[in-house]
Amino acid sequence: MLRLPGLIDPHVHMREPGAVHKEDWSSGTQAALAGGFTVVLAMPNTQPPVIDTPTLHHALELASQKARCDYAQYLGAGPDNALSAPALAAHSAGLKMYLDQTYGPLRLDDMTLWMEHFANWPAKMPIAAHAEGRSMAAVILMAQLFDRPVHIAHVSRREEIVLIRAAKEKGLKVSCEVSPHHLFLNKNDLAALPGGLGEVRPHLAMLEDQQALWENLAYIDCFATDHAPHTLAEKDSPNPPPGFPGLETALPLLLTAAHAGRLGMEDIISRCYTNPRRIFDLPEQPETWVEIDPDAAWDIHASKTFTRSAWTPFEGQPVRGRVIRVILREQIVYQDGQVLGQPGYGQNLRPPVL
Amino acid sequence: MLRLPGLIDPHVHMREPGAVHKEDWSSGTQAALAGGFTVVLAMPNTQPPVIDTPTLHHALELASQKARCDYAQYLGAGPDNALSAPALAAHSAGLKMYLDQTYGPLRLDDMTLWMEHFANWPAKMPIAAHAEGRSMAAVILMAQLFDRPVHIAHVSRREEIVLIRAAKEKGLKVSCEVSPHHLFLNKNDLAALPGGLGEVRPHLAMLEDQQALWENLAYIDCFATDHAPHTLAEKDSPNPPPGFPGLETALPLLLTAAHAGRLGMEDIISRCYTNPRRIFDLPEQPETWVEIDPDAAWDIHASKTFTRSAWTPFEGQPVRGRVIRVILREQIVYQDGQVLGQPGYGQNLRPPVL
Repeated sequence: MLRLPGLIDPHVHMREPGAVHKEDWSSGTQAALAGGFTVVLAMPNTQPPVIDTPTLHHALELASQKARCDYAQYLGAGPDNALSAPALAAHSAGLKMYLDQTYGPLRLDDMTLWMEHFANWPAKMPIAAHAEGRSMAAVILMAQLFDRPVHIAHVSRREEIVLIRAAKEKGLKVSCEVSPHHLFLNKNDLAALPGGLGEVRPHLAMLEDQQALWENLAYIDCFATDHAPHTLAEKDSPNPPPGFPGLETALPLLLTAAHAGRLGMEDIISRCYTNPRRIFDLPEQPETWVEIDPDAAWDIHASKTFTRSAWTPFEGQPVRGRVIRVILREQIVYQDGQVLGQPGYGQNLRPPVL
Repeated sequence: MLRLPGLIDPHVHMREPGAVHKEDWSSGTQAALAGGFTVVLAMPNTQPPVIDTPTLHHALELASQKARCDYAQYLGAGPDNALSAPALAAHSAGLKMYLDQTYGPLRLDDMTLWMEHFANWPAKMPIAAHAEGRSMAAVILMAQLFDRPVHIAHVSRREEIVLIRAAKEKGLKVSCEVSPHHLFLNKNDLAALPGGLGEVRPHLAMLEDQQALWENLAYIDCFATDHAPHTLAEKDSPNPPPGFPGLETALPLLLTAAHAGRLGMEDIISRCYTNPRRIFDLPEQPETWVEIDPDAAWDIHASKTFTRSAWTPFEGQPVRGRVIRVILREQIVYQDGQVLGQPGYGQNLRPPVL
C-alpha cells in the first residue's frame, strides 16, 4: 500500500451548468475522487460560459451544493471581458484562453484580443491557454511581451514540447500540462475508437508525437486529464463532440507506466500535485491523502466508472495500480469502489465572490 | 525636381529560372529601374527553388547575364537544407522562410524545422519570413529563443502590426516590411479586381487593417513591393496564382501619399533605402540616385509598364510624382520612360559563389 498526496487535476469539464446529461458537479467529482483527485480546476466553456460575475457566481453556487471534492472555477477569456474579468481573478482558478478550435463558443481569434487580456489580467493569477502549434508559440511570445507566466493546456505534439523545452531552457515563464490520452494513445489507436469516439481536441497525434512527450517528460509540469465527458449517444452521432472522460483512468494508467519503469512515482507526484499546486497557487489540503495498491491488476471498464459519460477510450485495457482509499480533510471520501464524499463536502479553494 | 537615393526593394519575384513568360531578370530589372529601384532582393521560390549551391549558382548566373540593376538572391529554407544552407549564407541576400500558404513548393509546416534553420543560419545574416498572424508571432518567439533578428515580410493586418509594435517596444529584434498594395488597397477594392486579379498572399485585408498600417507607420521598417508578376491569362484562369506586380507603381503611390500629407519624403527614404540597407547589410552604391518630379500628375496604366505581367491592380489610378531619371554607378540607366541600363550591367551585391 502506498500513500500519495490528494491529486490535483488542473483541467476538467464538469459540464454544469448547461449539460448535466453529460456530467454535473456531483457525478464529475465522484469520478475525481474515484480517480484519486481531491482538487479539480473546472473549465469555463459551460452553457452559458463562465465569463462574468453572474455566470461565475452561478457556477460556484452549483459547485458548492454538489461538489464532493475541492475545486476552483476558471473564468473564460471572451472578446468583451478583458476589462471586467480582472476584478474576478482572485475568485477564479485562473483565466482560460481558447485560442484554437474547441468545444463551445469561447474562442479568441484576433491576437489583439489576447493582448487585451494579457495587459489586464493580474500577473500573479494564472493564465491557461488552449493553444496548439503556432498559436502556442504565439501565446508564449505574448507572455514574454507582458512579462508574465502562461500555462499551456494539453500539449500533444512533438513540435510543441520541443518548443516548450527551448523556451524553458531560455528561461521563459511557461508551464505546460499533458493529458493521459496523448501520453497513452496515438492516431493508430483510432481504429479501435470508431466514429466519433476518437474525436478529441487536440487530436490524437502521431506515434512520433507521443514518443516526443515521453522523451521530454522533464519539461512537462503537469498531467491533466482534460476530462471532457460526452455521452456515447453523442459520440456516435453525425457531429460527435470532441472529448474523452479521463478522471478515473489517469492515475491507473500512470501507475501502470510506473510499474513498467517508464516514469517514477515521484514523477507522478510532482506532475499531479507539487507542480499544479505551485503553478495555480493552491492551498494545502490538511489531512488529505490517497492510498493506492500499486500492484493490483485489473482491467478498465466504463461500466465501473462514476462519470456520466459511461464510456472510456481505454475500455478493456489491463492496468496495474488501483486507488483503494481517499481521505479528504480527515474524512474517508472514497473506499473500495464506493464514493463516500457527499455533495457539498467539496470546498472552493478561492475566496467566494461576494 | 527631387533627388532620392537609389531605392532598395527587399522583396521581388524575378520568376527566373522557370517562369520567364511571367518575368525574367531582364524585364524585372527594367521594371525596377523604371520604378526608381536600383537594388532588388530576389525571392527563392522559382522553378526550381533556390535552396542549394547548384540552384543558387544557376540563379546568380542568369542574374549576372540579364540584370539591369543591382541585386542579391535569397536562399529558400527547405525541409532538408538547414545544415547545408549556412555555407551559402554570405552569398545570399538572406534566408527566406515560407511559413504560410504561398506560391510555389517552399513551405515549412513543422516548427522544429524552423528551429533547425534558426539554430544553424548565421546570426549576422538576415532571415526573412512569410509568416502571417500566429505564424508571425511564432517566428518572432523563435528569433527570441535563438537570440537573433528576424524580418517579417509583407505585414498586412492590424493584429500583426500591433504585435510587432509591442515586440519592438519590448526591445525584441524584429523588423518588418509592408507592401504598397496593403497600404493602398483593401478588401473593398476586390470589386474592381474581378476573378483572380485580386488574389494575393497575404490577402487584401479589411479597411481597419489598412488603417492600422498607416497608424503604425513608425513601426514599419521597409516598404517592399512583393513584386509577383503573373500574366493576365493566368490571373483570369480557374486557379489564379496569387500575386501583384508592384515595382513600377510603388514609388508613384508613395509620392502621391506624400503629396497628400500622409507621410513625409523622409519616411519614404528611410523605408525604401536607409532601413533596408541596414537590415540586409547592403553596400553603398556610389554615384547612384533617382530624380523625381514630385508634382507630375499622371495615371497608372499597365500598358506603359515594363513588367511582363502586363497588368496592374492600380489601373487608371491618378498619381502625383514621377521618376524622371535613374543614375546607377554614374550611368544613366533610366530616363523619360526609357530603360537605358543594359542586361548584365547589374551587379551582385554579395560575393560570388565559387
